[in-house]
Amino acid sequence: MTAPTDGYPRRYDSEGLGMSDLERRTHAIGVDIGGTNIRAGVVSWDGEILDTVHAPTPRSAASLERALEGTIRELMQRHEISAVGLAIAGFLTRDRTTVRFAPHLPWRQAAVGSDLTRRLGVPVVLEHDANSAAWAEYRFGAAKGSENVVIIAIGTGIGAALLIDGEIFRGSYGIAPELGHIQVVPDGRTCPCGKRGCWERYCSGTSLIDTAIELLASQPSMSTPLAREVRMDPGSISGRRITAAAQDGDPLGEATVAEFARWLGVGLAMVSDIYDPDLIVIGGGVGSSAPMYLDEAREHYAAMVTGAGHRPLARIRRAQMGEEAAMIGAADVARAARSESTSG
Amino acid sequence: MTAPTDGYPRRYDSEGLGMSDLERRTHAIGVDIGGTNIRAGVVSWDGEILDTVHAPTPRSAASLERALEGTIRELMQRHEISAVGLAIAGFLTRDRTTVRFAPHLPWRQAAVGSDLTRRLGVPVVLEHDANSAAWAEYRFGAAKGSENVVIIAIGTGIGAALLIDGEIFRGSYGIAPELGHIQVVPDGRTCPCGKRGCWERYCSGTSLIDTAIELLASQPSMSTPLAREVRMDPGSISGRRITAAAQDGDPLGEATVAEFARWLGVGLAMVSDIYDPDLIVIGGGVGSSAPMYLDEAREHYAAMVTGAGHRPLARIRRAQMGEEAAMIGAADVARAARSESTSG
Repeated sequence: MTAPTDGYPRRYDSEGLGMSDLERRTHAIGVDIGGTNIRAGVVSWDGEILDTVHAPTPRSAASLERALEGTIRELMQRHEISAVGLAIAGFLTRDRTTVRFAPHLPWRQAAVGSDLTRRLGVPVVLEHDANSAAWAEYRFGAAKGSENVVIIAIGTGIGAALLIDGEIFRGSYGIAPELGHIQVVPDGRTCPCGKRGCWERYCSGTSLIDTAIELLASQPSMSTPLAREVRMDPGSISGRRITAAAQDGDPLGEATVAEFARWLGVGLAMVSDIYDPDLIVIGGGVGSSAPMYLDEAREHYAAMVTGAGHRPLARIRRAQMGEEAAMIGAADVARAARSESTSG
Repeated sequence: MTAPTDGYPRRYDSEGLGMSDLERRTHAIGVDIGGTNIRAGVVSWDGEILDTVHAPTPRSAASLERALEGTIRELMQRHEISAVGLAIAGFLTRDRTTVRFAPHLPWRQAAVGSDLTRRLGVPVVLEHDANSAAWAEYRFGAAKGSENVVIIAIGTGIGAALLIDGEIFRGSYGIAPELGHIQVVPDGRTCPCGKRGCWERYCSGTSLIDTAIELLASQPSMSTPLAREVRMDPGSISGRRITAAAQDGDPLGEATVAEFARWLGVGLAMVSDIYDPDLIVIGGGVGSSAPMYLDEAREHYAAMVTGAGHRPLARIRRAQMGEEAAMIGAADVARAARSESTSG
């Protein structure tokens, strides 16, 4: 490979081998910046969260930066830290100093990383939230020891990240991979992104609701508990309610989850045709219900992948790092970038 | 990145910088093994073809190996060569010694690389034909100077290759990327692969014929020259005939090519969402008609890609290396692997 230019972890591996004693003693702060809440944590070299601060996410760009500064300073008063990583759902520049665009945050072409580095006096690195969570799985969770990994986070939408040879792949402009809005159904369901038929309209928590409504419309005589609820007040149904109904054996719930599993299998086949990984990790809120649908999705995947029978299939595992994955991963990415830049 | 383990070019860059005088004096043989013909050529360090031998492709695995041995020996008698690269349309093991499966060739789990290396006394390296052609574009053609490139070869089907940081990306099992059989239309056109709705059923030379027939069925009153030919004898229509008709302004031909452009745009958006490359190179037989449809495809691509307006778009260029690309690329891959393994 060509010489690394983006400050990515190279000096120690996923087991922490190659890490100096000094590196083991320093902590880093990871901040998961959601549309509703900021969650900041002090994270040790081995992925343990030592302290946290939560705050609501302000609406304006300037007040969001101020809130972050305050949150981080609060933790810095209590701990010695070497770097800060911010996990952000949005498009970043490849050098990870600037937010190009973040749909749920007020930043547009905002040099957040450089600004906060100057204000706080420690290096502040931005990282895509899916990349942050993927990095946490690679260093401390389900992807430990694997080198070519696709991590798919299924929640309201689909987040994805890719590790190639143990490094986060970010494409030429810092945007890869963005799998949720690949069109899987021409003229299919409308998507808030403005397109139609995006994968996440068929394979996400919110898609479960659309699927249940569509299935019920095609079988109007269906009268299960879930069917009655959907008919009465479709706006009150959540993805969680649907998986719970399926768990209870409700036929509409089961059919909805089966349809979800089919679309997950289609997507996993797509992912394998594209990246040919040895491991696929499924995370996110809907990922936690994986035992309900993963076997079925795996069968669809095996049937749909190109050259089935002539190639090894990727293993599929559930994510292990839970809701703190992005925070832990962002901290570790920042620590590793810091370690890289100071080691010469 | 972790230490390279698969013998890929690292000692000289796409301009040949870092290449020793000895390396510049040695030639390599590249062999493009098609289902019908074997085309072998002696290729100089700067991509020039110095000599060629052609032969029909035998039907059995043993006779194919013998034919290759004879062809290569013939060229070795006339030139001093350091390595041989075989370009193969099929699944290879990641170490590139063995063919797992090649749909148009008799090899199944065949250790062709090791066998021929022993018989010929020079290193014989296998390479996927799309990767070989991509490598030729990177070293000598349209992708020179780019580092993150997707090359799409559109012919009977779709071949694809990916360069990341100037190296061929091959996935965990040597199979990535395999884009032609990604499902783009659920329950869509049947594909010889056994699935339905594969991308190459909508975006290839053969897809043009299906599209023309479908368009004509939906507009039975259409009476253009091409429409009359399709109606008379659909079996006689070729993709080339359709692009020629479009060139002549035949409305059915134009509508067919417009539909092709739409599907190409959908696929280019998919490719950009996945890899976020800075360059997409379009090659293959249908690639040569690109001036007819590329502007339209580019518009569809720009409309379909995720986050349009908030990200730089990849440039799209036509391939430059022509039909010898796989031969030249396979030779250069083998030369570079040889140079890598002997440099310690």
